[in-house]
Amino acid sequence: MKAGIIGATGYSGIELVRLLHFHPNVDLVKIISNSKNGEEISEVFPHLSNIFQLELSTLDIDELAKGVDLIFLAVPSGISKKILPVFMEKEIKCVDLSGDFRLKNPEDYEKWYGGRTADKHYLTQATYGLSEIFKEDIRNAHYIANPGCYPTAALLGLIPALKNGIIDKDSIIIDGKSGASGAGRKAATATLFAEINENVKAYKLGKHQHIPEIEQILGKVSSEIINITFTTHLLPITRGIMCTMYTKLQGTTSEEKVIDLYKAFYEETEFIRIRDAGRIPAIKEVSGSNYCDIGFAIDERTGTLVIVSCIDNILKGAAGQAIQNMNLMMGWDESLGLTAAPSYP
Amino acid sequence: MKAGIIGATGYSGIELVRLLHFHPNVDLVKIISNSKNGEEISEVFPHLSNIFQLELSTLDIDELAKGVDLIFLAVPSGISKKILPVFMEKEIKCVDLSGDFRLKNPEDYEKWYGGRTADKHYLTQATYGLSEIFKEDIRNAHYIANPGCYPTAALLGLIPALKNGIIDKDSIIIDGKSGASGAGRKAATATLFAEINENVKAYKLGKHQHIPEIEQILGKVSSEIINITFTTHLLPITRGIMCTMYTKLQGTTSEEKVIDLYKAFYEETEFIRIRDAGRIPAIKEVSGSNYCDIGFAIDERTGTLVIVSCIDNILKGAAGQAIQNMNLMMGWDESLGLTAAPSYP
Amino acid sequence: MKAGIIGATGYSGIELVRLLHFHPNVDLVKIISNSKNGEEISEVFPHLSNIFQLELSTLDIDELAKGVDLIFLAVPSGISKKILPVFMEKEIKCVDLSGDFRLKNPEDYEKWYGGRTADKHYLTQATYGLSEIFKEDIRNAHYIANPGCYPTAALLGLIPALKNGIIDKDSIIIDGKSGASGAGRKAATATLFAEINENVKAYKLGKHQHIPEIEQILGKVSSEIINITFTTHLLPITRGIMCTMYTKLQGTTSEEKVIDLYKAFYEETEFIRIRDAGRIPAIKEVSGSNYCDIGFAIDERTGTLVIVSCIDNILKGAAGQAIQNMNLMMGWDESLGLTAAPSYP
Amino acid sequence: MKAGIIGATGYSGIELVRLLHFHPNVDLVKIISNSKNGEEISEVFPHLSNIFQLELSTLDIDELAKGVDLIFLAVPSGISKKILPVFMEKEIKCVDLSGDFRLKNPEDYEKWYGGRTADKHYLTQATYGLSEIFKEDIRNAHYIANPGCYPTAALLGLIPALKNGIIDKDSIIIDGKSGASGAGRKAATATLFAEINENVKAYKLGKHQHIPEIEQILGKVSSEIINITFTTHLLPITRGIMCTMYTKLQGTTSEEKVIDLYKAFYEETEFIRIRDAGRIPAIKEVSGSNYCDIGFAIDERTGTLVIVSCIDNILKGAAGQAIQNMNLMMGWDESLGLTAAPSYP
Repeated sequence: MKAGIIGATGYSGIELVRLLHFHPNVDLVKIISNSKNGEEISEVFPHLSNIFQLELSTLDIDELAKGVDLIFLAVPSGISKKILPVFMEKEIKCVDLSGDFRLKNPEDYEKWYGGRTADKHYLTQATYGLSEIFKEDIRNAHYIANPGCYPTAALLGLIPALKNGIIDKDSIIIDGKSGASGAGRKAATATLFAEINENVKAYKLGKHQHIPEIEQILGKVSSEIINITFTTHLLPITRGIMCTMYTKLQGTTSEEKVIDLYKAFYEETEFIRIRDAGRIPAIKEVSGSNYCDIGFAIDERTGTLVIVSCIDNILKGAAGQAIQNMNLMMGWDESLGLTAAPSYP
Repeated sequence: MKAGIIGATGYSGIELVRLLHFHPNVDLVKIISNSKNGEEISEVFPHLSNIFQLELSTLDIDELAKGVDLIFLAVPSGISKKILPVFMEKEIKCVDLSGDFRLKNPEDYEKWYGGRTADKHYLTQATYGLSEIFKEDIRNAHYIANPGCYPTAALLGLIPALKNGIIDKDSIIIDGKSGASGAGRKAATATLFAEINENVKAYKLGKHQHIPEIEQILGKVSSEIINITFTTHLLPITRGIMCTMYTKLQGTTSEEKVIDLYKAFYEETEFIRIRDAGRIPAIKEVSGSNYCDIGFAIDERTGTLVIVSCIDNILKGAAGQAIQNMNLMMGWDESLGLTAAPSYP
Repeated sequence: MKAGIIGATGYSGIELVRLLHFHPNVDLVKIISNSKNGEEISEVFPHLSNIFQLELSTLDIDELAKGVDLIFLAVPSGISKKILPVFMEKEIKCVDLSGDFRLKNPEDYEKWYGGRTADKHYLTQATYGLSEIFKEDIRNAHYIANPGCYPTAALLGLIPALKNGIIDKDSIIIDGKSGASGAGRKAATATLFAEINENVKAYKLGKHQHIPEIEQILGKVSSEIINITFTTHLLPITRGIMCTMYTKLQGTTSEEKVIDLYKAFYEETEFIRIRDAGRIPAIKEVSGSNYCDIGFAIDERTGTLVIVSCIDNILKGAAGQAIQNMNLMMGWDESLGLTAAPSYP
Repeated sequence: MKAGIIGATGYSGIELVRLLHFHPNVDLVKIISNSKNGEEISEVFPHLSNIFQLELSTLDIDELAKGVDLIFLAVPSGISKKILPVFMEKEIKCVDLSGDFRLKNPEDYEKWYGGRTADKHYLTQATYGLSEIFKEDIRNAHYIANPGCYPTAALLGLIPALKNGIIDKDSIIIDGKSGASGAGRKAATATLFAEINENVKAYKLGKHQHIPEIEQILGKVSSEIINITFTTHLLPITRGIMCTMYTKLQGTTSEEKVIDLYKAFYEETEFIRIRDAGRIPAIKEVSGSNYCDIGFAIDERTGTLVIVSCIDNILKGAAGQAIQNMNLMMGWDESLGLTAAPSYP
């Protein structure tokens, strides 16, 4: 199968290049970058020297559509909504890593992203690609709205508890912590090394565009209206997200029972690892992999179930899950090209 | 005034050395370290070369008591409970940076620290040194139980809201994040650079010994029994603590009103800085100083007041507050020797 | 004395703000930033909240010249050459932190910086401000070309050996290593956290504009033409420079003798600390201070004297030395406002 | 083929576990760790959860020798010299990652490592495993002394120039820079996060045990006695080594000619990547891979060829090269199990 990437020189884009190059069923034939048009990818990213050679080119939608079977859109939100509909019209499979096709309620998009959302005709064609939760939908999809990084970690950690009714739906607090690569490769003062290093910043409190995305999916799986409290923090690490989530238990349970419930829920999946009682995952334990590791602690004094969920934001939180969704769409094993273990230390 | 430090080669100890050397009213005459007995402090810590010269010696309590007017105990919990009572008997003023004299309920100590607490006779003589909250008590004290690093950040952020009844006392969740210096200078695999770098670990969930300390003080200022949910995370930074705290509002208010309330509460203090609406403090904004910076966000959708409190864990969270408490005990200006501004970047 | 800063929101500028605010003899009355005109400095840099209040304004040379006795130019190279001459005409004392007035040979400037140098009339009026080496010149100066960060570390480490003829002048190799703050606060992809973290990059090999600056001063103090080999590396730290320097010994000597020579050479100075035999300085041992720490190792097998010199690039390498030069120019003690010890860890 | 690892819980050991688990021709059946006897490897290292299950056991040489065809010794220097001879007697293939069998001159071992070297009978049987240089020897070997991390980076960068006579053999200066994982996983104060972070330390100047290793091999390939100047620096990164090497050119050449020479020299190899003129490799460009990237700059003013060589110290500098050597010994393609690309950022 022939694939192309629009936005190949961002952090998610260059990970897609690496993953697709090694993918056994895919031939990566087109990599688009308007800013680096004409340059060899391995000149821009020397870590790929001797590994992958291809010239970056500017976006010519017609030409691209003729040359590939599937396209990854690794472009900022606001751009996809203009491009993806064109490929939909041409019936080219797409995985969109931006936020443009995730929110199904146009008012949500306008409030949290600003600007108009994509036309409803196109919006409804994009399937939300949280692989483990919507596997069947994804298998039948042609167009994927790939989830945000925080929503991936948060939703995979919350959904089994919420669907099984063991937590109070109105009690959910998500303390999100992300590495700086999540801010992208755009030149900016706020993400300079000297600003991030030896620092932690809380940002966009109550205003992060991933709030409606998480609420939409929690609402969908529980058939209830759910409001969450969500706080994000920028950490001095390159890769990785940890969501520490606080929920009120409904009734009595134990860490062991919660763990059993989660293990059963995710039994058929490849990339969710549930920690045993007393073990909490750390970011480094998933770095470089497509895994989502989840651990639990119950504070009986306050009736609180604390859920800790970790992912590599560029892999399971972006490029890795995009590949996983491609695999599902194509009817392949979902782990194809994604079997790399985390590396430690 | 002549001062001595027991445990001068730990991270809090060496900061005490630096701060006391520059303190206008103090002569640092004794620095104790059993492991480095006979070495010059500037040989062990070359950053003090040409600045401060003094030989480290082993602990000889009688000799020490004769030579100094005030002693800082920068030793691990479990050690102070054996030493501090001896100095109490000799009526030598002490500031104890360990956890041994903070918990007034012996059962709490046994449960959270393990082992027996100090004798009640001595325990009751030690005043809890949260400088801004118990200023009058500290001024009259001879023995200070210097607060833990997390409790300092958490309590300074919570107390004004709690005392003014604007938050539900049963709703308090503290997501604590600390730099690795908080684990001390002891050789350990878990705090090696390669384990902490590019990583975040949640630890001691629901089991941290600072839980009863925070609850005891919240209970004291509110005259209610309070249980908190408290989670701690180890960050890849050397210095700094951020507590992101989630509380449910009682009644309606606004960020501006909360800010006004806090500014009024801390009006007479020197080291609390309340951020204006829309501004959240970052760790780097307090690093290298004795400040505690506090900011707020209200999530109206969930009725949540998020309070973010930042300190330098070695300064306001340990050595800095210890100096502040000494200043208060001695009747000096509380900021004497502590006026250094944070440095940035 | 009234002082002003042009370029107060860069990394050197904001350190100047902090240092001048606490300087006992200086009143900082004007801070210039074209990009942040009208904002309070503590809004832009909240670490200065409650410490220093002043509104940033755009540059109006006439107005500035009327209001201050001394100006710090913390602007990029290429800008100072246009501004400083105007202040020279008005006979306002200046310390210029840029590279524009360091190179006395116009061809050097054109080759290494590009563009035309300042007019010779102005160029000759600026005294090179390597405080320890040119103290008398600086005391009589009105205009200071403050040295570059690498040249400060390298020259202070090399000059005593070179002047005393113990090393071969043609053998000097400088392996320079700098923290990322040295690249300034300009938005740029290359200095994003995710590019610098967990990375080391060698850059500008044989092309760095500090080469002619070092060679000019080595030539001046030795009265010989000297060519050096100089390589620079970008490190994942915020602050600090280490220069590891390799020189061939002329004749036989010992580490002890070299150390004695350096201690004698720098006997009258306040900020140079010479390590004893077997001790090599580390960057953290100078961080946050104006010190330059120097250590030595002789490799007898190859007749090599290795000199390791460390500074805080923003302090001794920029703002700190600028203050030191102001102190000298004003006839004050050179350490006024600069006595802060390094902090550790 | 069945393999075992002695010392599976160190940083090199755990990378061997990961690499061997995914190696197509190898079955990892025994992992030895005296300190973690009886524990599951994925309990000790949760990043391998759901990926690799095997119980750690203590070393029983006879039992181990019966169960495996090849053994990796990932133990500290001083231990291998006692164990490896036993396996030699049993004719079990071994790759020894320690320094015990690298130095062929017993006096060198005693001087630089301390203690007695292995018996000459065993010492001579171990082949120095610098894969690209001694490929034929390794193919015929049974026992490999796997090179040190610094020697791997330095030798691969120096040998082509030295063998081709373009540099003065007496002019070699190596400025080595290493990540903290190189110090191993042993609890130690000097490698705590708070000591390494925001710091750079030069260490073992002129005393590093890799000096005789580099000199021995440079001497062997050039048939001359060679003394180098070698300095090592500890960096605040987890993985990676950069050697910046300074050599005097013999005669005139150009960067392009040097590059051509190196490309020709390494034409048949898989893991050496020579940068084009004007490009210098960075550590991140090899991280997570077995590549050694080499770049060049000529300073014509001083007749110096600067060679910059980068590796991942745990892969090409330890576990990766060990696998490469196993592949060669077994007659397999040398890149088997080692094709992972570096990841960026």
